[in-house]
Amino acid sequence: MKIKIGVLGASGYTGADLIRLAAVHPHVEIGPLAANTHAGKMLAEVFPHFAFLAPMRLVKAEDADWAACDAVFCGLPHGTAQDLIKELPASVKVIDMSADFRLRDTGVYVQWYGRAHAAPELLSEAVYGLTEHYRKEIPGARIVACPGCYPTAALLALLPLVAARAIDSADIIIDAKSGVTGAGRTLKQNILFSEAGEGLSPYGVASHRHAPEIEQEIAKAAGAPVTVNFTPHLIPMSRGELVTCYVRLKGSAMAADLRACLAETYAGEPFVHVAEEGVLPATQTVRGSNHCQIGVFADRVPGRAIVIAAIDNLVKGSAGQALQNFNVLFGFDERAGLQQLPLFP
Amino acid sequence: MKIKIGVLGASGYTGADLIRLAAVHPHVEIGPLAANTHAGKMLAEVFPHFAFLAPMRLVKAEDADWAACDAVFCGLPHGTAQDLIKELPASVKVIDMSADFRLRDTGVYVQWYGRAHAAPELLSEAVYGLTEHYRKEIPGARIVACPGCYPTAALLALLPLVAARAIDSADIIIDAKSGVTGAGRTLKQNILFSEAGEGLSPYGVASHRHAPEIEQEIAKAAGAPVTVNFTPHLIPMSRGELVTCYVRLKGSAMAADLRACLAETYAGEPFVHVAEEGVLPATQTVRGSNHCQIGVFADRVPGRAIVIAAIDNLVKGSAGQALQNFNVLFGFDERAGLQQLPLFP
Amino acid sequence: MKIKIGVLGASGYTGADLIRLAAVHPHVEIGPLAANTHAGKMLAEVFPHFAFLAPMRLVKAEDADWAACDAVFCGLPHGTAQDLIKELPASVKVIDMSADFRLRDTGVYVQWYGRAHAAPELLSEAVYGLTEHYRKEIPGARIVACPGCYPTAALLALLPLVAARAIDSADIIIDAKSGVTGAGRTLKQNILFSEAGEGLSPYGVASHRHAPEIEQEIAKAAGAPVTVNFTPHLIPMSRGELVTCYVRLKGSAMAADLRACLAETYAGEPFVHVAEEGVLPATQTVRGSNHCQIGVFADRVPGRAIVIAAIDNLVKGSAGQALQNFNVLFGFDERAGLQQLPLFP
Amino acid sequence: MKIKIGVLGASGYTGADLIRLAAVHPHVEIGPLAANTHAGKMLAEVFPHFAFLAPMRLVKAEDADWAACDAVFCGLPHGTAQDLIKELPASVKVIDMSADFRLRDTGVYVQWYGRAHAAPELLSEAVYGLTEHYRKEIPGARIVACPGCYPTAALLALLPLVAARAIDSADIIIDAKSGVTGAGRTLKQNILFSEAGEGLSPYGVASHRHAPEIEQEIAKAAGAPVTVNFTPHLIPMSRGELVTCYVRLKGSAMAADLRACLAETYAGEPFVHVAEEGVLPATQTVRGSNHCQIGVFADRVPGRAIVIAAIDNLVKGSAGQALQNFNVLFGFDERAGLQQLPLFP
Repeated sequence: MKIKIGVLGASGYTGADLIRLAAVHPHVEIGPLAANTHAGKMLAEVFPHFAFLAPMRLVKAEDADWAACDAVFCGLPHGTAQDLIKELPASVKVIDMSADFRLRDTGVYVQWYGRAHAAPELLSEAVYGLTEHYRKEIPGARIVACPGCYPTAALLALLPLVAARAIDSADIIIDAKSGVTGAGRTLKQNILFSEAGEGLSPYGVASHRHAPEIEQEIAKAAGAPVTVNFTPHLIPMSRGELVTCYVRLKGSAMAADLRACLAETYAGEPFVHVAEEGVLPATQTVRGSNHCQIGVFADRVPGRAIVIAAIDNLVKGSAGQALQNFNVLFGFDERAGLQQLPLFP
Repeated sequence: MKIKIGVLGASGYTGADLIRLAAVHPHVEIGPLAANTHAGKMLAEVFPHFAFLAPMRLVKAEDADWAACDAVFCGLPHGTAQDLIKELPASVKVIDMSADFRLRDTGVYVQWYGRAHAAPELLSEAVYGLTEHYRKEIPGARIVACPGCYPTAALLALLPLVAARAIDSADIIIDAKSGVTGAGRTLKQNILFSEAGEGLSPYGVASHRHAPEIEQEIAKAAGAPVTVNFTPHLIPMSRGELVTCYVRLKGSAMAADLRACLAETYAGEPFVHVAEEGVLPATQTVRGSNHCQIGVFADRVPGRAIVIAAIDNLVKGSAGQALQNFNVLFGFDERAGLQQLPLFP
Repeated sequence: MKIKIGVLGASGYTGADLIRLAAVHPHVEIGPLAANTHAGKMLAEVFPHFAFLAPMRLVKAEDADWAACDAVFCGLPHGTAQDLIKELPASVKVIDMSADFRLRDTGVYVQWYGRAHAAPELLSEAVYGLTEHYRKEIPGARIVACPGCYPTAALLALLPLVAARAIDSADIIIDAKSGVTGAGRTLKQNILFSEAGEGLSPYGVASHRHAPEIEQEIAKAAGAPVTVNFTPHLIPMSRGELVTCYVRLKGSAMAADLRACLAETYAGEPFVHVAEEGVLPATQTVRGSNHCQIGVFADRVPGRAIVIAAIDNLVKGSAGQALQNFNVLFGFDERAGLQQLPLFP
Repeated sequence: MKIKIGVLGASGYTGADLIRLAAVHPHVEIGPLAANTHAGKMLAEVFPHFAFLAPMRLVKAEDADWAACDAVFCGLPHGTAQDLIKELPASVKVIDMSADFRLRDTGVYVQWYGRAHAAPELLSEAVYGLTEHYRKEIPGARIVACPGCYPTAALLALLPLVAARAIDSADIIIDAKSGVTGAGRTLKQNILFSEAGEGLSPYGVASHRHAPEIEQEIAKAAGAPVTVNFTPHLIPMSRGELVTCYVRLKGSAMAADLRACLAETYAGEPFVHVAEEGVLPATQTVRGSNHCQIGVFADRVPGRAIVIAAIDNLVKGSAGQALQNFNVLFGFDERAGLQQLPLFP
């Protein structure tokens, strides 16, 4: 059985990674690929690595026959995404990789995105697409709002611990590191090779838009509002993301208890792996794959622990998780199309 | 139908890339993985990106039951390979990624490798595994001697042109560039991150062992002995290989004629692609895939042209081509297990 | 006036960077360069970038005339350093870039280095060479124990704040990131280009030997024992180090107060720069130079702040600071030989 | 003695590297820094690594008092350079790092740059600034047209050999490799980190504007028109350039003769070094410095040789050579301000 899909935002990195994976997915038929600036061009002009696929032409969003699609993946920038998604036929399932339907509270949306939400009525049809934690709610949803890349890694590491009351939700520090694709393909000076290479820097300190998304989900698990420290850094690599979470243990919990809690939560999960004691997560270990690797370490500071998670920001952090949600939505094996092993080196 | 395979040299990069691809190949069952230094360790200790596969333990070559295998892939260093391959049961097909059975002339072998060949009697059972040019001879062979990475790129670009007498086989210059995985995983100072990064240098100038291999095949196509210039360079990237071939046109041939000759030769090939005029081959375009991209350019120097080919050195240049040969050997669709698209970025 | 120097450990990266800077220092005459494994080789064989200096031959430590030197820089690994330093003539000033004379407490040394200190009697002649904080004690010392690279960045950022009681010394988390030269030039698999490139990972979690050094100095400023969280990460770049310090404010202190405290402490310092509000420290900004850049940021979590410092691990984190201490020791302008601007890009 | 300089194009990489070097040059006083788009900003906003210099503000070219300068360095793009240079007071020496005054033949200029030259009358006042070959003509010139980065490396390697009739000027192939700074700081998709990283590609095949410049100088040495093959490649590193020149020997010349010819030509030169037999030039060896390293290798193809030169494209290939010419122009030691050793690693 084939599901016909379309893509909004086919000329960005997340759109491209979705196409890369979807093109060899056993249950996907690729339909319209929309990308307004590049509309009219062949996909392989915009992304030469698609030269080995059958030729496909990019179209304008308004020229595509979305009603012929069963599902549409959206890789547009926030803001633009909601404007186009609200125009899609109601029959079409939407798997949104943008930030537009992640925040449940439109007030928080305004505060962080500086504009009113254009389609608040759709929020009730949306589910937060952190597959491992929302698997049951996804099949009935119209829109799956896939988490941001940082929230994916941070929440997979922290949610079970907060829910189990093993860590103090009021004292969470997330030092995050991302490869440069996280900044997208839009031309900006700081992501030029000669600027981003051979060096690293923090960015978005105390102001990155993934913070409220992380807080929304941790608060839900904690049953109380939370504020987390979230500090991202730009690392000279293309793909990969690692979060180093500094947490305070509750009660008599020890690092080993955190590890056991995570291991139990994710036992049987195809894509989330809790490393044995002493194994260091690394982005190299997950590159190009939908896997997430989590490690737990005792801190020398009494009462504290360190929880580290690594993902590929474009796969588990975006297009791969989107396809995982697609599989859940349409009743396929969750691993379909996602069984490629990490590309190392 | 599943074919049981074993691997000799599972702890090197080519062995690992073979396992990466074989693990998701629809017709492969992975059997013994031999790696003498690391024997006894779990595969995932040696290569953490295999943590997401079922656990497999590395064994000593002498402890493996090779007779239970239908095929054995060999990713050992030259020299060691022939010593172990000659001990394998005659029932086992051998797909050798080492250099040991590539040179037909044992005299040339001695000259370049500094030792007598230990299994000359097996050479008659071996075929040179440049799939697109030896496809018909592979099914009957006992040993498939997969080409070196540089010869793969250079020969795919040049063989049809030499065979068609479109270029002068006596005036071929191959300026080659490779990522650092080409040097293997053995500890050497020049491949440390801080030595190889942020810089480039030539190496093996007029002395690289891929030269006689290239010459053997070009001479065969030319019907006369040839000496080529082959100058490799180490590039600060992990994967990827690009050869820039400077050639002299014969008769009235033009660059466009070369392109047409290549396009005709490779029409219908799943993995070799002749780019349209003006499209620049790049290693980014083929990374992680079994594809080879070839471009032809007119030179400003009258009577000359430039032929450029890009591959992933570990895939089409080694493990991918090995699996492609496996598919041919066992009658599978040549693309089986090799349809992953390039990983870009 | 020229001071004759020698170098112990001239074949490592810190030794080499010391030579790079010393060779153009106006008051330095380079004497014996010792490097046991490579003894007998020319310096330019071991480090090709010294091909443009007058030829110098590496010698064995026991063959050098150390008594003819005024000062000896030591870039040896810990353990080896103390064994050789104790054999040097008492007339020679020692500027030690190893870890051997940094810890005042030999018990702590044993605990972290797993061996008894071989020259405890010399500890009383040693001063901790964090120039900006020990400037007055350096001229009278026989041995200047230059801080580790991480301690240099972390202590420059934190010491004034702890001393001013502006932050809680019991709640300090230091997430540290270093380029690969930090791991030295010794052959190890994890620092091969293909292993360390295009990815990042933590290492030495809760076990890195720079932790007790940081704690020693913070405890001294705090007047009480402290345990800090110190978690280093290996970043795919050659040079550069950045520490992101998560701190809890004391009393009514605000981020701006921390910035003011640091700015006042380092006013007039030639090499430590407190960035204006909003300026993000980056290792690119200091590469190849002796500068340290510090930024302070308010956290969204009430009562917390983020202090970030960037240095070049081989310069301010090692050889540059060593030369700065040399300048102090011999009464030269502290900037002598260190005025090269950062190499960007 | 201090010479007051100004800079046109202070916000590009060549302008910045000129400032980096000039700021510590013993005979330079930095005057107006012009950069139209960024005029009004502080230099350190545009290039954070200048935060450690005294604050300087960028100005519009028309607002600067050029008459107060003794010399003006120009790092503007071609076309713009000539328009502004012709407006400078006649009293000012111009050291131009752009392409505008390199080609002696305005017809060739039109052909390659697609516009008529706007200041042909100034060409007679200009000398080609390849210091080692035009040293005597520089002091009397008004304008020093510094060579392009690729021509610098290629001509240093080839000019003496052509002049000595040791190689055939009609059969020269230059395979060139450059770091990404060679493409400038202007925003272009192909130089984003995620596009240029972990891969390489040729560009400007048979159409790069450095070809006519190389040909102009080789023709002059050969005494006859020449066409060379010049094929550049973009390498994933920020700085560095290496040319691999494939040449045909004339008469009975051998590789060793070429080496001897080059060694004799450059004996005593402070910045051009002919490597001993077997030493491989590498860009790492010259990074950040004004040095050029040249190696000569026998080819296995009879009658051919390989000549390889490495430089830092922003230093010897641009700003460093410009300062070297400044030193010649004003009678300083040619090494003044250029004695920093290469930054390795």
